[in-house]
Amino acid sequence: MSNTINVAVLGASGYTGADAIRLGLAHPNVRFVALTANSHAGKPIAEVYPHLAHAGLPDLTTVEETDWSGVDAVIAGLPHATAQKITRDLVDSHPDVKFVDMSADFRFRDPAVYSATYGIAHEAESLQKDAVYGLTEHYRDAIRDARLVACPGCYPTAALTALLPAVSAKAIDATDIIIDAKSGVSGAGRGLKLNTLFTEAGEGLSPYGVASHRHAPEIEQELSAAAGHPLLVNFTPHLVPMNRGELCTCHLRLADGVSADDLRQILAERYSDEPFIHVVDKGVTPKTQNVRGSNHVEIGVFADRIPGRAIVIVVLDNLVKGSAGQALQNLNLMFGLDETTGLKQLPLFP
Amino acid sequence: MSNTINVAVLGASGYTGADAIRLGLAHPNVRFVALTANSHAGKPIAEVYPHLAHAGLPDLTTVEETDWSGVDAVIAGLPHATAQKITRDLVDSHPDVKFVDMSADFRFRDPAVYSATYGIAHEAESLQKDAVYGLTEHYRDAIRDARLVACPGCYPTAALTALLPAVSAKAIDATDIIIDAKSGVSGAGRGLKLNTLFTEAGEGLSPYGVASHRHAPEIEQELSAAAGHPLLVNFTPHLVPMNRGELCTCHLRLADGVSADDLRQILAERYSDEPFIHVVDKGVTPKTQNVRGSNHVEIGVFADRIPGRAIVIVVLDNLVKGSAGQALQNLNLMFGLDETTGLKQLPLFP
Amino acid sequence: MSNTINVAVLGASGYTGADAIRLGLAHPNVRFVALTANSHAGKPIAEVYPHLAHAGLPDLTTVEETDWSGVDAVIAGLPHATAQKITRDLVDSHPDVKFVDMSADFRFRDPAVYSATYGIAHEAESLQKDAVYGLTEHYRDAIRDARLVACPGCYPTAALTALLPAVSAKAIDATDIIIDAKSGVSGAGRGLKLNTLFTEAGEGLSPYGVASHRHAPEIEQELSAAAGHPLLVNFTPHLVPMNRGELCTCHLRLADGVSADDLRQILAERYSDEPFIHVVDKGVTPKTQNVRGSNHVEIGVFADRIPGRAIVIVVLDNLVKGSAGQALQNLNLMFGLDETTGLKQLPLFP
Amino acid sequence: MSNTINVAVLGASGYTGADAIRLGLAHPNVRFVALTANSHAGKPIAEVYPHLAHAGLPDLTTVEETDWSGVDAVIAGLPHATAQKITRDLVDSHPDVKFVDMSADFRFRDPAVYSATYGIAHEAESLQKDAVYGLTEHYRDAIRDARLVACPGCYPTAALTALLPAVSAKAIDATDIIIDAKSGVSGAGRGLKLNTLFTEAGEGLSPYGVASHRHAPEIEQELSAAAGHPLLVNFTPHLVPMNRGELCTCHLRLADGVSADDLRQILAERYSDEPFIHVVDKGVTPKTQNVRGSNHVEIGVFADRIPGRAIVIVVLDNLVKGSAGQALQNLNLMFGLDETTGLKQLPLFP
Repeated sequence: MSNTINVAVLGASGYTGADAIRLGLAHPNVRFVALTANSHAGKPIAEVYPHLAHAGLPDLTTVEETDWSGVDAVIAGLPHATAQKITRDLVDSHPDVKFVDMSADFRFRDPAVYSATYGIAHEAESLQKDAVYGLTEHYRDAIRDARLVACPGCYPTAALTALLPAVSAKAIDATDIIIDAKSGVSGAGRGLKLNTLFTEAGEGLSPYGVASHRHAPEIEQELSAAAGHPLLVNFTPHLVPMNRGELCTCHLRLADGVSADDLRQILAERYSDEPFIHVVDKGVTPKTQNVRGSNHVEIGVFADRIPGRAIVIVVLDNLVKGSAGQALQNLNLMFGLDETTGLKQLPLFP
Repeated sequence: MSNTINVAVLGASGYTGADAIRLGLAHPNVRFVALTANSHAGKPIAEVYPHLAHAGLPDLTTVEETDWSGVDAVIAGLPHATAQKITRDLVDSHPDVKFVDMSADFRFRDPAVYSATYGIAHEAESLQKDAVYGLTEHYRDAIRDARLVACPGCYPTAALTALLPAVSAKAIDATDIIIDAKSGVSGAGRGLKLNTLFTEAGEGLSPYGVASHRHAPEIEQELSAAAGHPLLVNFTPHLVPMNRGELCTCHLRLADGVSADDLRQILAERYSDEPFIHVVDKGVTPKTQNVRGSNHVEIGVFADRIPGRAIVIVVLDNLVKGSAGQALQNLNLMFGLDETTGLKQLPLFP
Repeated sequence: MSNTINVAVLGASGYTGADAIRLGLAHPNVRFVALTANSHAGKPIAEVYPHLAHAGLPDLTTVEETDWSGVDAVIAGLPHATAQKITRDLVDSHPDVKFVDMSADFRFRDPAVYSATYGIAHEAESLQKDAVYGLTEHYRDAIRDARLVACPGCYPTAALTALLPAVSAKAIDATDIIIDAKSGVSGAGRGLKLNTLFTEAGEGLSPYGVASHRHAPEIEQELSAAAGHPLLVNFTPHLVPMNRGELCTCHLRLADGVSADDLRQILAERYSDEPFIHVVDKGVTPKTQNVRGSNHVEIGVFADRIPGRAIVIVVLDNLVKGSAGQALQNLNLMFGLDETTGLKQLPLFP
Repeated sequence: MSNTINVAVLGASGYTGADAIRLGLAHPNVRFVALTANSHAGKPIAEVYPHLAHAGLPDLTTVEETDWSGVDAVIAGLPHATAQKITRDLVDSHPDVKFVDMSADFRFRDPAVYSATYGIAHEAESLQKDAVYGLTEHYRDAIRDARLVACPGCYPTAALTALLPAVSAKAIDATDIIIDAKSGVSGAGRGLKLNTLFTEAGEGLSPYGVASHRHAPEIEQELSAAAGHPLLVNFTPHLVPMNRGELCTCHLRLADGVSADDLRQILAERYSDEPFIHVVDKGVTPKTQNVRGSNHVEIGVFADRIPGRAIVIVVLDNLVKGSAGQALQNLNLMFGLDETTGLKQLPLFP
């Protein structure tokens, strides 16, 4: 069938890779032709992810042993650093393949910021110029024509969706942006870490990466561009005892003469035609339960008790709109499909 | 479009009703034309279930004010007792409508057992003869021709799927069946009850309805029929601190000459062509995480340490295969569609 | 024994009342002589709280039927509005009894603020002048001599412990205080509410009372007093899927010339002799897991990415230091005991 | 002070070690003089367990560097295999020290069963004869005089407390014992394992070690002794998404002429004088919430639907009565103290 997209998933053993597979299996055009997971090569996917059994997927393989003939697109859920080398090699050797990368490796326009943030030199700088930042609603045209899309981090997707229109419209003071962020545990990945054990993360709330999280420079890159000058943000993430879901509470100083209602209106107009971004009515409070498992985003705007301030709350599913769902949304654009194809599943509640 | 099924959901404010809507929205033939919730009539569904916003659904209404013209099918998620009266009246007045009932009201062939179990007289006994017990894989032919399908309870769906083939094949001692059952909290519904508060059900495990749960007589009805004689079962449910998921651990005495491997083989053969029932390989352990949000069932069979005994473990999502998913599966049969239509969503994990 | 304090708990069926009993049973001087719960009068406490069985407690009774002879102290965990009337009557009729009230009814110095916040007239205004705000570390001397102590709300206890020294020292801009607050579900009490069902609050994060929560005016009352002028704060609470625990992330603008390290030093010095308040070292992040079930508070101070700003994180157990533990701490002071008596239990982890 | 017990905790970085410290800090006679954790030696305990900060504990050290002078007792929370070698060496070199071991290494009377169960040779067989099985209520006299007490596993503590009196009284068929067991995640320890990540264990229920769990032979050892003949049991554990708590649902065939009420009476009489074991009234259902964080055990007895069968439900906190609490209970006996010393803390609920 001519409109089938043959997709290879790199890093299929991570949560973002697995969710790309889950979503892709409901996509009428996507066919998974290769799934790599180097440490699990040779196994059926069901041994690593039993929930993906019964779907007729190919066995796991290594990147090296993957048969690239016929592959149209790569969705990569590799760890940062790993991603850039593999992508660089593949881009060179397979000129017809399009790449959707869910790692951090191609998100920064300035390799120096990447190096400062991730603590390693960038080994594929030449690709930077080809990479498009994959925040779909804000880079749609460039994504359509891109060969390599760097999907934003989950927190940046949430924060920027709420803040970019406000900064662009100069509706808020861009030097006084506070993003109090909260995420479910899947955001930390499937690696074995003490703080993500059930017994450590359960029945408790723990801040982490306070003022030092790697998503802050990514948010700052985009907001600085929108503001027209460099800026820093407060970014304070917390680990919440839930599997999925992400919520940013943005505490903002309104520009002179702008009210919270004005700000809501700006956001509502900006996103009025967007299928996945919903600015809820005054008085309605978004919560992560509303978007679990789906590509939807909800944004609510509240007047603060302190005059001249507003609170913007944004929620999404960190693995879907925060990663694999946005990856598929971008893939749709890159292949000329309706952007919502395969992404119409409603949230799972309760 | 000729193959559109116009569906009214009665009891749309309950969890089973809401999950029927969630699933139906992904069904290519289902169109929701009425959603009733008498205590919320007049509200948009998004006020009651924000996760169902953005789907173009009709507002909530009462049963009485529902416009039945053009309705092809009813999916009812009403409480028991309420269901029978409304169904009786509708069946009489709307001869062309097909009914899929998710309540307990039409599950019992013998109204006396219903009355003894639910503590009220049955007010629609005449409908009993029309009602088909909607355990799809075991009553498929009758469901195809039925006008009224009574979907099994969530626990009976799990237990019977595991046990019916074993009893029918006389592979186990039908007088010595122990069903140690565990369910997530959504099985208790959306009503306000002390024991389902987060603070009461969280961080703890609590048995309930020990030897007295209403699903036991329902399981016994079906197993007695398969065994050819009346029997009682041990049925011991526990409330688990999770939203969705149900697991029955069935402790069984094997018939003479039958091994656990034989029993696995019997189940595997019985379900080899079933799209939703999966007998996992020897050594693999089902868990509820594998089926969350989906219509899939997994069954594992283990030899016990005690010679001559086996353990059969079965998992499903109580709101999907245990209720709304099976309801749609039956609806598909009743309207001549492929049984898996609209039910191919993979489980959500993590 | 002369140093036994005979205590009546009013509202023993609520979570704060129950936790006062749990803690009091480990207190060498406390003897519970009456437990009231009007809707459960006549029952043994074990029917309402099985975890309090086996402790030799008196059966539940009504306020009206309580025998006040020999009662030395009342700990009241009644709902607001109810508390004020009962307290007023008891204070008049039992001049020798001391009162520790955990409700909101006597927290406000200005009855008009109470009425505006709680939507009802105050019916015991004459008692206001006798009531001492029971934030132990800040009103210790007054509490010692008080007849009626109004324990602060759980959020105010957390926020004020972090903020009062900073405002008093003029180390921060008191007009730009942002309190992003998060609480476990027990903070909502044992009443039956949809949003505190396991299925609604579990696996999700939901803001509530944004800019309108009743604890904001209480925080403002105390911070205004410390600042010497009226002020408003941003107060944005969120419901976290855990039973116990409360965390406030305070986003603050530092005064000119004050660094985050200075602010940490101010807090550390202020609390250096306090047995329950711990300012953790630079680089250490408080989390609610560290204080679960105990009367301890942890405070951490971080420099923000935005120059001139700081982040102060404070954690406590909402039912202990946030309510029943602080009530006992105050009771100890009122009866001349060491303040830590009965409160030395370490946190329960995991 | 003459009645101070100087205690060294070996394996202080594990959950059982940490809970022994938490409980011991509330014990009037226990003084912790050494805490070992070889991989964390040199650190303050607060770095490994922040909830144990503020208690004046010694820093972590290695077993090798521990100063044994003045040590009266060892509580060991080491992994099996590690425990036996260290214990053997210490027992030889420090004849005045008493040992309470929480590992599996000295639980089996027959080293061959140990080897078969744990897959390694026993390296301290000579100590077997000195070791007493530390199920307090059943080996109290021997524990008083023991030098080395091997505390039972958490599941065996629960199951044997429920079953030993029934088997001893020949009230049940000892060849037909089914133990359907459920545990919180802390039972799996603090090691990094995929299945105990929050994202893997949360929102789901998973059986494990079906018919092959290491606690089954331990249960069988004790029940065989009570029955007077070798026997096997069904033992089927499940991992429940909660931190603490363990529940065994025992499905039993009653001996001829014995009713469920008789069985309840047998258990009630057996434990009538026990401070920690509570047989609840007919109709009351134990749940893990009732015992969280405490040394208490609750047992409920129910008639089965199947005539001649009964269901016995037992709950405890796996880290307390299932491990560290029972260790302290045994320590009390070994040092001539009241058995409940330091263990009177009530459960934490919610």
